[in-house]
Amino acid sequence: MTELITRLQSIVGAAHVLIATEDQAPYLRDWPGKYQGAAMAVVRPASTEEVAAVMAACVEARVPVVPQGGHTSLSGGATPDATGRAIVLSLSRMNRIRAVDPIGQTIVVDAGVVLAKVQDAARDAGLFFPLSLGSEGTCTVGGNLAANAGGVAVLRYGVMRELTLGLEVVLPDGRIWDGLRALRKDNTGYALRDLFIGSEGTLGIITGAVLKLFPQPTARATAFVAVADAAAALKLLRLSRAHCGDRLTAFEFLTSATLEMILRQMPDTRSPFAGLPDAAVLIELSDIGDENALTARLETALAEAMAEGLASDAVVAQDGTQAKAFWRVRESVSEALVREGKALKHDIAVPVAEIADFVAVMDAAVGAALPGIRPMVFGHLGDGNLHYNLMRPLDISEAQFYEHGPQITRLVHDEITRRRGSISAEHGIGQLRPAEMPLCKPPLELELMLQLKRTLDPHGLMNPGKLLPGA
Amino acid sequence: MTELITRLQSIVGAAHVLIATEDQAPYLRDWPGKYQGAAMAVVRPASTEEVAAVMAACVEARVPVVPQGGHTSLSGGATPDATGRAIVLSLSRMNRIRAVDPIGQTIVVDAGVVLAKVQDAARDAGLFFPLSLGSEGTCTVGGNLAANAGGVAVLRYGVMRELTLGLEVVLPDGRIWDGLRALRKDNTGYALRDLFIGSEGTLGIITGAVLKLFPQPTARATAFVAVADAAAALKLLRLSRAHCGDRLTAFEFLTSATLEMILRQMPDTRSPFAGLPDAAVLIELSDIGDENALTARLETALAEAMAEGLASDAVVAQDGTQAKAFWRVRESVSEALVREGKALKHDIAVPVAEIADFVAVMDAAVGAALPGIRPMVFGHLGDGNLHYNLMRPLDISEAQFYEHGPQITRLVHDEITRRRGSISAEHGIGQLRPAEMPLCKPPLELELMLQLKRTLDPHGLMNPGKLLPGA
Repeated sequence: MTELITRLQSIVGAAHVLIATEDQAPYLRDWPGKYQGAAMAVVRPASTEEVAAVMAACVEARVPVVPQGGHTSLSGGATPDATGRAIVLSLSRMNRIRAVDPIGQTIVVDAGVVLAKVQDAARDAGLFFPLSLGSEGTCTVGGNLAANAGGVAVLRYGVMRELTLGLEVVLPDGRIWDGLRALRKDNTGYALRDLFIGSEGTLGIITGAVLKLFPQPTARATAFVAVADAAAALKLLRLSRAHCGDRLTAFEFLTSATLEMILRQMPDTRSPFAGLPDAAVLIELSDIGDENALTARLETALAEAMAEGLASDAVVAQDGTQAKAFWRVRESVSEALVREGKALKHDIAVPVAEIADFVAVMDAAVGAALPGIRPMVFGHLGDGNLHYNLMRPLDISEAQFYEHGPQITRLVHDEITRRRGSISAEHGIGQLRPAEMPLCKPPLELELMLQLKRTLDPHGLMNPGKLLPGA
Repeated sequence: MTELITRLQSIVGAAHVLIATEDQAPYLRDWPGKYQGAAMAVVRPASTEEVAAVMAACVEARVPVVPQGGHTSLSGGATPDATGRAIVLSLSRMNRIRAVDPIGQTIVVDAGVVLAKVQDAARDAGLFFPLSLGSEGTCTVGGNLAANAGGVAVLRYGVMRELTLGLEVVLPDGRIWDGLRALRKDNTGYALRDLFIGSEGTLGIITGAVLKLFPQPTARATAFVAVADAAAALKLLRLSRAHCGDRLTAFEFLTSATLEMILRQMPDTRSPFAGLPDAAVLIELSDIGDENALTARLETALAEAMAEGLASDAVVAQDGTQAKAFWRVRESVSEALVREGKALKHDIAVPVAEIADFVAVMDAAVGAALPGIRPMVFGHLGDGNLHYNLMRPLDISEAQFYEHGPQITRLVHDEITRRRGSISAEHGIGQLRPAEMPLCKPPLELELMLQLKRTLDPHGLMNPGKLLPGA
C-alpha cells in the first residue's frame, strides 16, 4: 500500500495525506463519541479534480473510501470502520463559495463549505438559505446532502433535497459527473441528483452543489404555547396552518418532562410559562413586510386556539431578545440530554396525523416493558418527525438500562414499521442502523437499493458498512 | 401471441383487452396528432394486482409495455411505436381517490385519476392541490408523475416531484414496490421514488401515489403588466419577489407577437392594455386571509415598478371576473397557436437570470438563419422556462419552413446546451427527442442513465423507444 500512499501524496501534496496517529485522530472518532475507527490515511484534496484522482487511485488499488465533511453525523456515517483498510477522504479544504446568483436566487458551493458560511453568503446577497441545524457552524453542505438534512425549517422550506438544484459528484470509478445545473425545471431523464442526495456517501462523493436561495424574511413572530399533549398540538398545528399558511416556519413540540429537564440542566434557560405545562409548542411565523401584522395574525390564531381549548397558555415574544430566549430553550435540548445521562435515541417519523397516537401508544408500551422508563420527546411535530428519546428509570443503573436497549428499540421500530413510518427521519442510517433495514423495509425495496449500489459501485468501495446491510 | 392474449383476458376480463382496430384507435394516436402507433392489444387493468399480473405475463412473453394515462403527452410519451409488437397498458380504470388526510394534508390516489379530480377532492377537504395544467380535465396523475409535470404554479409550489411523498410502482418484472409512504421526512436509503418520477414509464408502471396538499388560498390578486422585454420582466420578477415572497404564485411572460396572435385568433379574449405592449407579464399573488391587503401589496409593488421604469402600464384585476379574463388570454395561447399554423416548438429552460439574454441571442440567431421567422415566445419566466415557438416567415410555405426545422432546432438546442439549460423543461423527451439526448447531455450522464435502465429493466420492455436513445 506504500505505492498508493505515494500516489495520493503526489495528487494532494504530502502535507495533506495524514498518516500519523495524532494527525488522524480528529477524523477517526465520531462527534457523539460512539464510534472509533481507523484509516490507512486521511486524504485532504483541494479540488474536484484532486478528489477524482484520489478516487481513481483508490479504485485501482481496491481501497475503500470514506467521504467526510464536518464529521457531525449522528449515526457514525462518516467514521471509518476499525479495520484501517479504508482511507478517509476529507472535503474540508474544498470550502469555496463558487458563485451567487441574486436574480436566479441560487448559490454554487464546494461540498466542504460549512453550512453557516452558506447562510452568511446568502445574507450578504440579500437572500436567505433556510437549512438550519444545531451543528451549522461545523457541518458541511456535502454532509447535509449525503444525509438529506432536515432541521427546524422543513415545514416551510423542505429538506435538503428540496433545497438543491444541481450536483457535482465524483463517481466510484473516479470520473466526474457534472450535474451542476441551476434549473428550476428540467425533464430530461432520470433524477441522478436525487439518487446521490441521501445516499450517505455510498454511491459517490458529492463535491459541489447548486442550492436554492429565498427572499430574506423581514418579519418574525414567535410564541411558546402550553398544550395538554401531542393530540392538542396536532389540532393547534391545523389551526395555525389554516390561519397562517406558508408563514408557519417552525412548529416544535416538547413534552413536559423534556421542558423540565432543559430548564433544570441549562441555567441560562427560563420557562416562558408560570408553571410547567403538560406539553409545549414553539411556533414561529416569518414573512416579508410588516412585523406587527404578522404578530397580530399569530395572536388571532392563538386567541382562537385558547377559545377552542387547544391551548392553556400562550406567550408571544415581545421582541427579538425574547424570541431568542424561546429558541434557546428548544436549542438547548441536545446539550441538556448529554448532561442528563445516556439515552436510547430514536429519530422517527410517522404520517403527521398519527404522531399523537404514536406517542401515546409508545409511551404505554415502553412503560410496560420497563417500568419507570422516562420518555424525553421533542421535535418537528409539523413534519411528523419526533426525537423519541428514552432515559433510564431512576432506580436502575445505566448499565442495566442499556441491557434493555435492543428490546426497547425493537418495540419502537416495530411500531414505526406498522405505521409505515421512518426509523430515521433526518439522521440517516450510517453505521448505527443498517441491521435495522431488513426489519423495517419491504424486502423488494432493499433488493432494489442493493441493485443500485452494485450498479454504481461494483467494487463496493464507497463508504462500506454504511446504510445498507451487507454492502 | 394468442396465448398471451388469452392470459391477459383471464387477468382483466375479455372486455378490457382491446384487439379491434376501432376499439384501439383512441389509444394509438397521440393528442397533438403527431404520432400514430400500433399495438398487439390495449389492456385496461382495474387494480394494482391486475397491472402486476399483466406485467408478469408480458415479461414472460418478452412483450413490451407502453403505460398510458390520459394520453396528453406533448412528446408522444404514451403512444406505442408502429411495429404493433407492444401492448398499451391503460390505467384509465384505476381512477379512485383512495384516501384524504386533512390533518397530514395528504391524498392517496390511483395513478389513473384525472388531475382535475384530485383538485376537486382536495377542495372538498378544504385543501388545495396546486398542480394546474391546460390538460387537467384529461391528464392523469400517473402521467403527471411519469413526466414530472410543471405548469403555472411551479414558482410557488414546485413541480410534480416536489408535490409527491410516496409511490406505488409495478416493476418491469411484475412485482409491486409499495412505497406509498406519507412521510415528510424519511432518510432510510436511496430515493427510489425520485427515480421513477420523471422516468416516462421506462422503469416501471406507477400505479398509485401519495401527494401533498396545501391550505386553500382564500385571497388572490392578479395583474397584467406591460414591459419592454424579457430583461425588464426579469427585473420585475426580482422586485415582485422581494415585495411578495411566497405569495408570488405565477409570473407568466408573453411577447408582443404572442399577445397579438392570441387577441387576433381568439375572439373571446381582450387586451387589458390600451395599445399592444412590447411584452407582457401576468402576475398572480395568492394568500390566506384578507384580499384587500394582498391587492394593496401588489399595487405597491407595481407602483414601484412603474416608478423605476420597469413597467409602462399595469392593470390590476378589479374582481374575479376580470382576473379570469386575464388568465383566459394566457390560457388561450395553445389553441391560438394551433389556429395560427404549424410551429417549431421548444420547451426550454435556462438559469432564470439568463432567460432574457437567451431570448435576445436566440431571436437574432434564428432571424439570421431564416429571415422573417416569427418567434412566439411565452411561458413561466419565473422558473426560467419558456415555450420558445417559431413560426414560418409569411413569404414561405409550411413545407418550405419545415425543411429548415432540424437546422433551427439545432441552433436552439445548442444555445441551450451552452448555457447548461434544458431542452425539455416540462414536456419530457418521449419519442420526440431521444436523438437529442446525446447532443445535449454529457456522455457520462447518459451512460449512467442507461446503466440504471438496464438494471431495472434488463429485458428492455418498458416503453421502448422513449426517453433514452437506443433503450
